[in-house]
Amino acid sequence: MIQEAIFHVPYGAYAYSLSPHHARITLRAKRGDLKACYLVHSDRYEVPDIYETVRLSFSGSDELFDYFQATIESKTRRIRYRFLLDDGVKRLWYGEQGFASDLESSGCFQLAYLCTRDLYSVPEWVNDTVVYQIFPDRFWNGDPANDPEDVCEWGELPTAATFFGGDLQGIIDRLPYLEKLGVNLIYMTPIFLSPSTHKYDTTDYFSMDPMFGDMDTIKSLVKEAHARGIRVMLDAVFNHCGADFAPFRDVVEKGAKSRYVDWFHLREVPVDMKKINYETFANGVATMPKLRTENPEVKKYLLQVAEFWVKEVGIDGWRLDVANEVDHAFWREFREVVRAANPEALIIGEVWHDSSPWLQGDQFDGVMNYLFREAVVEFFAKRTIDAEAFDSRLTKTRMMYKEQANRAMFNLLGSHDTARFLTVCGEQEERMRLAVTFQMTYVGMPEIYYGDEVGMTGETDPDCRRTMIWDEEKQNKDMLKLHQDLIAIRKQHSALQTGSYRTVIKDPLTNLYGFVRENGQESIFVVLNNSPRSQKAAIPGGASGTDLLTGKKH
Amino acid sequence: MIQEAIFHVPYGAYAYSLSPHHARITLRAKRGDLKACYLVHSDRYEVPDIYETVRLSFSGSDELFDYFQATIESKTRRIRYRFLLDDGVKRLWYGEQGFASDLESSGCFQLAYLCTRDLYSVPEWVNDTVVYQIFPDRFWNGDPANDPEDVCEWGELPTAATFFGGDLQGIIDRLPYLEKLGVNLIYMTPIFLSPSTHKYDTTDYFSMDPMFGDMDTIKSLVKEAHARGIRVMLDAVFNHCGADFAPFRDVVEKGAKSRYVDWFHLREVPVDMKKINYETFANGVATMPKLRTENPEVKKYLLQVAEFWVKEVGIDGWRLDVANEVDHAFWREFREVVRAANPEALIIGEVWHDSSPWLQGDQFDGVMNYLFREAVVEFFAKRTIDAEAFDSRLTKTRMMYKEQANRAMFNLLGSHDTARFLTVCGEQEERMRLAVTFQMTYVGMPEIYYGDEVGMTGETDPDCRRTMIWDEEKQNKDMLKLHQDLIAIRKQHSALQTGSYRTVIKDPLTNLYGFVRENGQESIFVVLNNSPRSQKAAIPGGASGTDLLTGKKH
Repeated sequence: MIQEAIFHVPYGAYAYSLSPHHARITLRAKRGDLKACYLVHSDRYEVPDIYETVRLSFSGSDELFDYFQATIESKTRRIRYRFLLDDGVKRLWYGEQGFASDLESSGCFQLAYLCTRDLYSVPEWVNDTVVYQIFPDRFWNGDPANDPEDVCEWGELPTAATFFGGDLQGIIDRLPYLEKLGVNLIYMTPIFLSPSTHKYDTTDYFSMDPMFGDMDTIKSLVKEAHARGIRVMLDAVFNHCGADFAPFRDVVEKGAKSRYVDWFHLREVPVDMKKINYETFANGVATMPKLRTENPEVKKYLLQVAEFWVKEVGIDGWRLDVANEVDHAFWREFREVVRAANPEALIIGEVWHDSSPWLQGDQFDGVMNYLFREAVVEFFAKRTIDAEAFDSRLTKTRMMYKEQANRAMFNLLGSHDTARFLTVCGEQEERMRLAVTFQMTYVGMPEIYYGDEVGMTGETDPDCRRTMIWDEEKQNKDMLKLHQDLIAIRKQHSALQTGSYRTVIKDPLTNLYGFVRENGQESIFVVLNNSPRSQKAAIPGGASGTDLLTGKKH
Repeated sequence: MIQEAIFHVPYGAYAYSLSPHHARITLRAKRGDLKACYLVHSDRYEVPDIYETVRLSFSGSDELFDYFQATIESKTRRIRYRFLLDDGVKRLWYGEQGFASDLESSGCFQLAYLCTRDLYSVPEWVNDTVVYQIFPDRFWNGDPANDPEDVCEWGELPTAATFFGGDLQGIIDRLPYLEKLGVNLIYMTPIFLSPSTHKYDTTDYFSMDPMFGDMDTIKSLVKEAHARGIRVMLDAVFNHCGADFAPFRDVVEKGAKSRYVDWFHLREVPVDMKKINYETFANGVATMPKLRTENPEVKKYLLQVAEFWVKEVGIDGWRLDVANEVDHAFWREFREVVRAANPEALIIGEVWHDSSPWLQGDQFDGVMNYLFREAVVEFFAKRTIDAEAFDSRLTKTRMMYKEQANRAMFNLLGSHDTARFLTVCGEQEERMRLAVTFQMTYVGMPEIYYGDEVGMTGETDPDCRRTMIWDEEKQNKDMLKLHQDLIAIRKQHSALQTGSYRTVIKDPLTNLYGFVRENGQESIFVVLNNSPRSQKAAIPGGASGTDLLTGKKH
C-alpha cells in the first residue's frame, strides 16, 4: 500500500453534508492500489466499539489516483469515523493519527455536527436547466429606435469597439426561438449603463443602458421569459467599475477631498488616468478601476445593487465577473442578501481555475466551468488527449467539488472570452457534435454560447462576438436539430440530471469513451466515438435499450 | 519522484496571505524524495515567460512527508505560480494541470488576489502571552459571604457536584501571585448563573453567578488584572444552555405554544426531560439542551451576549465551548461582532481534532491545542513515542494550519477535561519539567492549568478539579520556580514568540530532542533529554551561547 498516496481530510469535498442527516465521505488512493476500502463510523460520543461499517464505492480515477466514496446516514448528526484499507496483501486502519494496525491507534476523523445552517443548498431547478449565454449587442436588434450612432450592419465582422444595435427587445422577439431550442435559463453579459459595447465598465449599476432598453424592457423580458418557463440571469461586475462611474469621477475631480476616496485602491492622490496610479482590472486598464469591496460603504452599495435587480426586476440569479479577485467575506454577504431576496436565486462565479474556496456552500452555487471546457477542447476539438486522459481530467475536476457544486456548474464549450468551439474544432462539425452530446449528458448544466447551436464560428474576442445568424439559409440546421434533440433528452431524463456517473469505456486505442448515468428509475449509456472510423460498442452488462436520438431498439 | 505523494492546493494552509502583499506557499512531498523545490511565480495577467523564481525551504517532516515553504512578495497581489521539483534524477514541473516536462503544460495555480478583507489577523499580543486557566470554584475563596450552602472544606477531594466557595474575589486576591508567576492572560471556565459547580449549563448569560460575585466583582477583576498587565477571557457556552435557561423553561411549560419553541432541536412537543426528546450536549444530557444557533433570534441573542461582556465588562476574548458543533455561519458573525466591540479581542475554539475549517481567518484565532497535548503526553509523560515520532506529530499539526493560527494556539498540558499532567507522568516530576520546558519554547501560547505549576495532581474530571494548593509547604517550589523562570524567558525572547522553528535533533536512540527558534535578532537552541541517563548535545553549527536557565556560558 502506498501510504503517501492516501488522502483524506474531514472537510471540503472530502467530507460534507448532503442533507441534515447524510454525509458524503471521499478517500483518495494511488491508482490501482486498493482492493477494498471500508468506512467505520459512529456517533462521536458513543463508546469506541459501537460502530457501523460501510464499503466505499469506486467513483473514478484520474491520472494518479482512484477515488472511493460513501454516503452515510447519521441520526444524531455527529460523526466519528476511520477507514479500513485493503490492498489485497495488507489491511491498515487509517484515521486522524495516520495509519495503524489496530482500530484504536488510528484515531478518528470527526464531522462534529452536520449543521443545517452550513448545508450547501443549490436551487432544485438547476437539475433540469440548460443555459443560453447572450451578448446583447449581438443577438438581435428588436428596437432600432434605441440604436447608438454608427451601428454597423448586422453580419459585419466586429472590432472591440463596434456596436450592432442588439437589445433586450431583440431577445424578447426571439424568445419563441429559444423556447423551441429548449433552453430555460438566459444569462446575459452586462446590460447596465456603460460606454462600451461589452459593458464590463459600468457607469451606473442601477440603470439599464438605453441602447438595450429601459426598466420596462428588462421587466418585460423577465415576464415574457418566465411565461415560457425560461429564467433570466444578469452579470454582476463588482470587481471593478467603469471610468464614468460617479464615485470614480468624483475622485478624479476632487482628489483627496472626494468622499469616495476610499472606494478605490489608489496608489496616489490625485488620480491620474494616464499614469494609472490606481489598481484596475488586470494590469493598467485605466477605464476599469478596481472597487474596494472591503469598504463597508462600497459593500453596502453593491449589495443594494444585487438586491435591487432580484427584487425589483425579478431576475433569477447572478453571474459574477472576475469573482476570484473579490473578497470571500463580500461574497458570503452577497449570498445572504440575494437568497433573502429570492431563496431560489442562482449564483455562478467566473473562476477559470480550481474554485474550491468559493464552492463550500457559503458563497457560490457553481462556476463557469472552464476546467470542463479545457478537457472537452483537448479531447474532442483538438484530439490532443486520449479517452483515458479525458476521463482523468473530468474525474479530477469532479472530485475537487462537492456534489451540489457539480450539479450547479455552467458547463460551457465557449464564451465571449474564448474562441468559438466550432472554430477550435477547425470547423470539423463531427467533433463539435460529439462535444455537444457529451455536454448535454454530463454532470452539471449545459451552457450554450449564443449561435454555437447554428454553427457560428469565430476566433477569440472580438471575433467570437459576431452577430447572431438568423438567416435560416445560413444556419447549420443539423447542428440546431442536434441541440434541440439533446436538450429535450436532457430535460426528459432525470438520470442525466442527477444520476450517478460511471465511466465504462475509456480506450486510448479506439478513443471510444462511454459512461453510464443512473438513478433508481433509469440507466442511460452514452458512448462517443471520438475517432475518424466507425466502431461498435456493447451496451454495458449486455442490457438492451432504446437509442434516445434515433428511437432504434438495441 | 513519487508523484502520488506530492500535494499542493492553492488555498487553506497551502497558500495564503501573511500580509496584503505577502503569501506563504507550502508543498508536501514523500519524505526524503525531493532534493530541491522551486516556485516560479508572476502576476497572473503577465505574459507567461515573465516570472520570478524562489527556492522553497525545507520546513520539517512528519512520518510520511517532507514540507517545503516559501514566502513571496507580490506588488499587484495577483499571483500565478507553479513548482519545479527535483529529486536528483529528474526535474518535473508541477501545476494545476498536474506534472509535466515543460513549464507551460503544467498549468498554473492561482492566488487570484490577496484580499485585505480576508487576511487572517490575530491580535499582536498573542506573541508574548502565557495563559492561565482557572476553574473559579476551586481557585480561591475570596469572599465567604457569597458561598453556597454546604461548601466543602478547601482541600477535600471533589465530586462532580461539590462546591468549594471559590470566587472572583479569590482571583482578585491572588493576582499578585499570578503576576509573580508571569502569566498575562487568565481564561476562566464559565462564571454565568448556573446551578452546577462547572457552570457549563447556563441559566442566564447576562448574569454573574452570585456564588462567584456580581457585575462589580467581574469589572474589578478585569480592571485590577489589566492594571497588572494581565488580560481576562471568558468561556462562551453557546452550543447548549442549562435546563433553567428561561426560554427552555418556557418551552417545557408551554410546549408548542411557547414563543421559544424554535430555539431548540425538539424531536417532539411537549418536551419531556425524562424521555429527553430533544437534542442535548453529547447524548442524553437532559440538563444541557442544544441551542438552535441557526435560528436568527437565537443567533441575535447569543451575539448580544458576546458583545455585552466585551463592551460592558471589558473582557479580552472568548473561549468557545464545543465550538465544532455550532455552525460556521454563526462563528463568522461572532467574529465580526466581537472584533467590532474590541479589535484586539482573542477568539479560541474548543476543538480537539483537526481544526482547519475554523482556522481560515474568518472564525477563530486559535484552538485549545489538544493535538499538541496528545503528542506531549505520549513523548514526555508516557514515553510511548520516540523523539522522531514526536517531531512528526508536531510537524503534522503545525502544517495543518496557517502561521497566524499556530501563533494563536492555546498549547496546553491539561485542562478541566483531562487528567492533570503530573498524574499522567506517573508523578515523575522530571518528565513534567521537560514537557513544561518544551511548552514554554514552542510555537503558540503556553497555557497552564491552575495548580499544575505547584505540582498538583489529579485523575480525570472530577479529580482534576481539586482546590488550588496555597499552603506554600505543600507547593512544589521547584516546579513553581521552573515555571517562573521559563515564563520570564519566553516573554523576554522574541525568537521564542515569533521566530522560525527548526528541528535539529530527533534521535530515537538517545531520545534527545532539539530545535532552534530564530529571528533576525537571536537564535535560541532548546535541547531536551527525554531519557533516564545524562547525555551531551552540541550547539548547532558549533556556536557558543548562554544557558538561559542557568546563565552559564557554553
